[in-house]
Amino acid sequence: MQKVKPALLRGFEEYLPHEQLQFNELVEIVRRNFELFGFLPIETPSAERAEVLTSKGAMEKEIYALSRLAAASNDEAATKGALRFDLTVPLARYVAMREHDLAFPFRRYQIQKVWRGETPQMNKGRFREFYQCDIDIINREKLSYLAEAEIPSVIYSVFKEMEIGEFVIRINNRKLLRGLLQQFNVSGDSSAAVLRILDKIDKEDAPALLGDLERAGVSKAAARELYDLISAKRDTNETLKALAAHGRRSETYEQGLAELHKIVAAIRQFGVPDSAFRVDLAVVRGLDYYTGTIYETALVDHPEIGSICSGGRYDDLASYFTDTKLPGVGISIGLTRLFSKLKETGLLKPARKTPAEVLVTTLDERYLEKYFEIARELREGGINTEIYLEEGKLKKQLEYANKKGFRVALIVGENEIQRNVVQVKDLSAQAATDLPRDDFLNFVRTLLKGS
Amino acid sequence: MQKVKPALLRGFEEYLPHEQLQFNELVEIVRRNFELFGFLPIETPSAERAEVLTSKGAMEKEIYALSRLAAASNDEAATKGALRFDLTVPLARYVAMREHDLAFPFRRYQIQKVWRGETPQMNKGRFREFYQCDIDIINREKLSYLAEAEIPSVIYSVFKEMEIGEFVIRINNRKLLRGLLQQFNVSGDSSAAVLRILDKIDKEDAPALLGDLERAGVSKAAARELYDLISAKRDTNETLKALAAHGRRSETYEQGLAELHKIVAAIRQFGVPDSAFRVDLAVVRGLDYYTGTIYETALVDHPEIGSICSGGRYDDLASYFTDTKLPGVGISIGLTRLFSKLKETGLLKPARKTPAEVLVTTLDERYLEKYFEIARELREGGINTEIYLEEGKLKKQLEYANKKGFRVALIVGENEIQRNVVQVKDLSAQAATDLPRDDFLNFVRTLLKGS
Repeated sequence: MQKVKPALLRGFEEYLPHEQLQFNELVEIVRRNFELFGFLPIETPSAERAEVLTSKGAMEKEIYALSRLAAASNDEAATKGALRFDLTVPLARYVAMREHDLAFPFRRYQIQKVWRGETPQMNKGRFREFYQCDIDIINREKLSYLAEAEIPSVIYSVFKEMEIGEFVIRINNRKLLRGLLQQFNVSGDSSAAVLRILDKIDKEDAPALLGDLERAGVSKAAARELYDLISAKRDTNETLKALAAHGRRSETYEQGLAELHKIVAAIRQFGVPDSAFRVDLAVVRGLDYYTGTIYETALVDHPEIGSICSGGRYDDLASYFTDTKLPGVGISIGLTRLFSKLKETGLLKPARKTPAEVLVTTLDERYLEKYFEIARELREGGINTEIYLEEGKLKKQLEYANKKGFRVALIVGENEIQRNVVQVKDLSAQAATDLPRDDFLNFVRTLLKGS
Repeated sequence: MQKVKPALLRGFEEYLPHEQLQFNELVEIVRRNFELFGFLPIETPSAERAEVLTSKGAMEKEIYALSRLAAASNDEAATKGALRFDLTVPLARYVAMREHDLAFPFRRYQIQKVWRGETPQMNKGRFREFYQCDIDIINREKLSYLAEAEIPSVIYSVFKEMEIGEFVIRINNRKLLRGLLQQFNVSGDSSAAVLRILDKIDKEDAPALLGDLERAGVSKAAARELYDLISAKRDTNETLKALAAHGRRSETYEQGLAELHKIVAAIRQFGVPDSAFRVDLAVVRGLDYYTGTIYETALVDHPEIGSICSGGRYDDLASYFTDTKLPGVGISIGLTRLFSKLKETGLLKPARKTPAEVLVTTLDERYLEKYFEIARELREGGINTEIYLEEGKLKKQLEYANKKGFRVALIVGENEIQRNVVQVKDLSAQAATDLPRDDFLNFVRTLLKGS
C-alpha cells in the first residue's frame, strides 16, 4: 500500500502522553486559581466571522481563514470564517452579544487555543497554534481601580502554586508613561511609536535604543533623560519617590502617579508580598489600547524567558461592536510557550507518567474475575487502575509497567489465590508485600502517597 | 464609529457561563472515568497536513482547509493544512509517528474539538464545530478480546456517574454480520452497501428498508429473513440462543458467534450488569473498517436521541502510515451533541452557576483590608471566593450576587467590625447569621455542603 508520511505542520506541536500529563497539570493549576478568585469559564468557537476578527484592523496578516478542501460550497464558515488569533476579540464579541444575559462586573476566564501565521521558532517558544489562558474583569461605564489591583493577587496565586521558582510581577501605568512623553514633547501618533521603542528597553542596548528614540523625533537630551529614568533599577518605594521628585509634571502624569500610588497600596492589602511585585517603569507593552495599569511577569532566575503573563487595563473592550462602554482589565498566560520554556530550562516538576498508577497484572485466565474484582475495588476507592489485558508472562507485564511508569503492580497467581492474599509490588523500591485479599487497599493508598 | 455586528458563524456554538460550567462538569466526568481505567491523555494539533487527513480517502468534502486571510504566504499551514474532522485519523498518525516512544498496549483518551462542513441542524445536535471524547486501546500485531470486553465497563462507568437516566450499551459483532450476509449471498462491495442499509433499521419502517435491501441485490425472501432476525427485540441470552439455532452457518458466522459468546461472558465479569448492556443485532455501524465488536449506547427513555457513544473493534489503525499492524478498539462520545440533547430534554443535573459560591461584599473603603483578609482565609480553606470590588450599596451587591448565582454572601460593616463578627448570609434561604470573626469558615463550609 502507498504510504503517507506521518508528519506534523510546522508550528503545530503535540506532546507524548507523559508530557501531556505535565501540561494538563499546569492547565489545572491555572483553572483552579482562576476559579478560586471567582472567574467564570467561557469558551468561544475556534472560528469567527472574519469581519469580527478584523474589526480592530490589527493582526490581519497573521490570520488563518477557512475554506473547503474539496467541494465548492456556500458554507458560511468556508466563505467568511477565520480562526481566532487571540481570546480578547472573541471576548469583546461575546460580551457585546450577550450583554443582557451577563452579570456585571463580568469576570471570565478562558483557556483555549489560538492560531497565528507567524514564523514558528520553537527555540523561542513561538508556535502557530498555542494555548492562551486569559482572565478579564469587565464592567459597564466604569471600573474600580481595585480590579486593577486585584489582578496581581491572581497572578501571584497561580505562579506560587506552579512552583517554577521566584517570580516578580512588574507593573507600570500607561497614564504615567503618556504624561512623561508629553513632557518630552512626544504625543499623538509618535507617542505610540516611542512606546514601541521603549518596550524593547530590556532587550536592546542603550546606544541602539537612544538612536531609535532620536529617529522617532525625541531630542537627544530628552531621549537620555527618558532612558535613564525608565531603565533605572529601583525597588517600588524608591521608584515612587523618584517619580514624585521628577521635575516637570503634566496633568496626565499626576493622574497616573496617583493611580499607581493607590494601586500599589491595594496590591499590598490584597496580600501580595513586596518580594513578588515591583513598580518598573521599563514595562511598556506594545499594544495601544491600554490606559491604566500594565503588567508583565518574569522569572527572577530566568529573565531570558521574558514575560510569562502580561496584560493591562483598557477603557473600552468592545467599541467596534456596541455603544455600551465596557472598561476592563485582563491578563494572558501563553501556556504553550511557557511550558516549552519550562521544559527546556528544566523547571517543570516531575509529574505522574500515567494517570493510573496501579497495574493489575493477569497471570492466569481462570482468575480473570478476581483481577477484575480487585481493579473494581481500587477504582471504587478512587484509585486509577489499569488491568493488563493481553497475554504475556509476568516479566513482560512488569516491563510494560516500568516503561509506562506505573508505581504499583498487583500480582495474584495460584499461590496467592490459595493463601487468599494479594502481592503488592512497589515498582520504584522493587519491594513486594503480601496483603490479605480483603485488606490491601489502604496499603496501596499509602504507597501511592508515600513517594 | 462604524459598528460590526457581533454574530457567530452558523454551526459554531458557544454557551453562557452557567451552561459552560455544566458542560465542563460533563467533560470532567468523562476525563475522570477515562483516567480511572488507565487511559493516557493526548492532544493533537487542530490542523494537520491535508494528505494525512485524506489518506483514507473519506470525508474529503467535509474538511475545512486553511489559508491566509490577507497576505499571500508560503506558510505550510496555509498551503497544506486542514482542520481534523475526527480524532481517529490524528491518532493513527500519532501512533505511526511515535511508535517507538509509546508503551503497548497503548491506551489513550482525547477530548478535543473537530470540524465538519456538514449542514448544521441545531435541533438534531449537528454542529460544524464539536467536541469528541475518544478512547482507544491499540496493540501491535494482535489485541486480546478482553480489550473489546473492557470497553463497555468504561462506558458504563461514565454514564452511571453522569446520572442522565437509564442507558443500555448495545453490542454486536461484525464477523457475525458478515457471516450472516454471506449466507444470504451478499458479499464484497455489496455487503458494505447492505450494512449501510441495515444501519437504518431503527429509523426506517420495514417496507422501506426491505425495498432498499432488494434494490441492493438481496432476494425478497432473504431480505425478509434478515430483517426479522436483526430487528427482533430479545434479551442477550435469547439472542445468543436464536443465533445458535439459526440454520445456515458459515465459518465467519461461527467465528463471530464464538467471539460474541466470550465477550459477553467477559463483559459480565467486568461487572457490567445485564440491565446496562444487550447483544442487539440491529447495531450495524456505517463505517467499513470495523471487524469485531461494535457498540452503540442509547438512553432507554429517550431513544429519539440516538446513540450517545459508539465505536468498535478494527484490525489495523494506521495502515496508511506504517507497515506495523495496529489492531485496536475504540469508542467516541460526541459531547457537544449529547450536551445539546440533554439540555433540550431537561436531563442535565442542575450545576453551580458560578465556580465561586461565596461573595465578600464591600461596604466601607476603610475596611478593605478586612474584606481581603476574609477572602484570603476562605480561599486558603479551599473555598472559591469573589470580592465585590465596585462601588455600590449593599442592595446592589446582593442583586449582583443573586443574578450571578452565589449561594453565600459575607457582610461586614461598622456594626460587625465593632462586635468582631462576620455576617454570613445564606442567599437561597435568605437567612443571616452572625459568626465570630475568627470562626466563620466552618459555618460557610457547612452551608455550601448543605444544599
